[in-house]
Amino acid sequence: MEEDTVYQHGTLAMLISGLFDGTLPVSSLLEHGDSGIGTCAGLDGEMVVLGGHAYTIRRDGTVEELAGDVTVPFACVHFDEVKNFQSITNLSVDDLEAKILQENSRNVFFAVKITGTFAKMTTRTVFKQEKPYPGLVEVADQQAIFTGEDTKGTVIGYYAPDLYQGVASSGFHLHYLSDNHQLGGHILDMAVKDGELTIQPFVNFNLHLPVDNADFFKKRIDTDQLNAQIRQAEH
Amino acid sequence: MEEDTVYQHGTLAMLISGLFDGTLPVSSLLEHGDSGIGTCAGLDGEMVVLGGHAYTIRRDGTVEELAGDVTVPFACVHFDEVKNFQSITNLSVDDLEAKILQENSRNVFFAVKITGTFAKMTTRTVFKQEKPYPGLVEVADQQAIFTGEDTKGTVIGYYAPDLYQGVASSGFHLHYLSDNHQLGGHILDMAVKDGELTIQPFVNFNLHLPVDNADFFKKRIDTDQLNAQIRQAEH
Repeated sequence: MEEDTVYQHGTLAMLISGLFDGTLPVSSLLEHGDSGIGTCAGLDGEMVVLGGHAYTIRRDGTVEELAGDVTVPFACVHFDEVKNFQSITNLSVDDLEAKILQENSRNVFFAVKITGTFAKMTTRTVFKQEKPYPGLVEVADQQAIFTGEDTKGTVIGYYAPDLYQGVASSGFHLHYLSDNHQLGGHILDMAVKDGELTIQPFVNFNLHLPVDNADFFKKRIDTDQLNAQIRQAEH
Repeated sequence: MEEDTVYQHGTLAMLISGLFDGTLPVSSLLEHGDSGIGTCAGLDGEMVVLGGHAYTIRRDGTVEELAGDVTVPFACVHFDEVKNFQSITNLSVDDLEAKILQENSRNVFFAVKITGTFAKMTTRTVFKQEKPYPGLVEVADQQAIFTGEDTKGTVIGYYAPDLYQGVASSGFHLHYLSDNHQLGGHILDMAVKDGELTIQPFVNFNLHLPVDNADFFKKRIDTDQLNAQIRQAEH
């Protein structure tokens, strides 16, 4: 079943290393899923994919639907299968993550989707870089931060086991898009007022790498510092 | 193209943690490739897959073709595509690995296949364990070691980038099977006399996890010690 598979193009280690070239068009990405997260070429905003449409949230907070020929250096998508949602109310992000990890395996990749009202939502967006690209840690230091209260929208993202730190961002990696497209980005903090939570576990993790990209081909990726760098850039 | 994809069931971290249950039948594994490496349920020998046939090399050195209903906890397979082989002569394993890394990207998964004559070949095999399973490090301490001079056969295995340590065994992970089935196993050392080397890079790394296995579901995998444990068990 295609709902059993999460598809990822690129790795988080590539972003940490400044490999921001767009190496897959959005049109190809959407063949592998209708929901997910990512970023655009040059780190042009935070991407949210919902209902087969890809959006980017830019540094000025504007939300734009992406054309099929826009390219991405990193993205993760799956086909949404809503079969077992549960109602949740009044949860901090820590409460939410603890609840999910109590009910699911820490060794399995799964998607997290929450539709509802969020008492608090704090997001960040990165912004478009020019070559020579800096690393993700430096870009994250210049991020724009947005906040909202009692916004309605969708949280979408993934849990990756600790083992995949650097391949993905281990733990939870969640993005947000409000229904009115006025607020979105990479979630730094949130509180759920009320909503519906769906967890979709995956049997298959399909990783697609830009093997024809010259910078990727020759880059020496320093894995020793990855864990610390990812925590600095993503949290 | 199916030749662009390497398919892996399970992770090396699972073996390190003593998760030796067979969770995929060989018949299903062979749908995803005709060449590769792995091990059988309970760590019953070193597996070699060649020409669509799966073999195990047991602790007593015997080689047996595996029936389709034998199950595996960990295996990696691909469809062999011989399009660019090169002749090699008189290479130590260090020379060989240095040569390959000079010609290929350290960030890309690829298969390594060598058919030819091996001046020296040193292999090890693990052997079948019973529950409660120990970890791979303890099992590797009790491995059987075999050596051969001027044997004819096939080296088959993979290179995985450093980033995937624990998911796979990072660097080179090579197995051997002699043409006469008298020598085989996980390669500890070798010297190539003369042979043909094929490198097959992969765009896709497809990881398949045993999400329905109860031990896997609940196991807490200690990623901090993984790198040291894998080096101890696999080299």
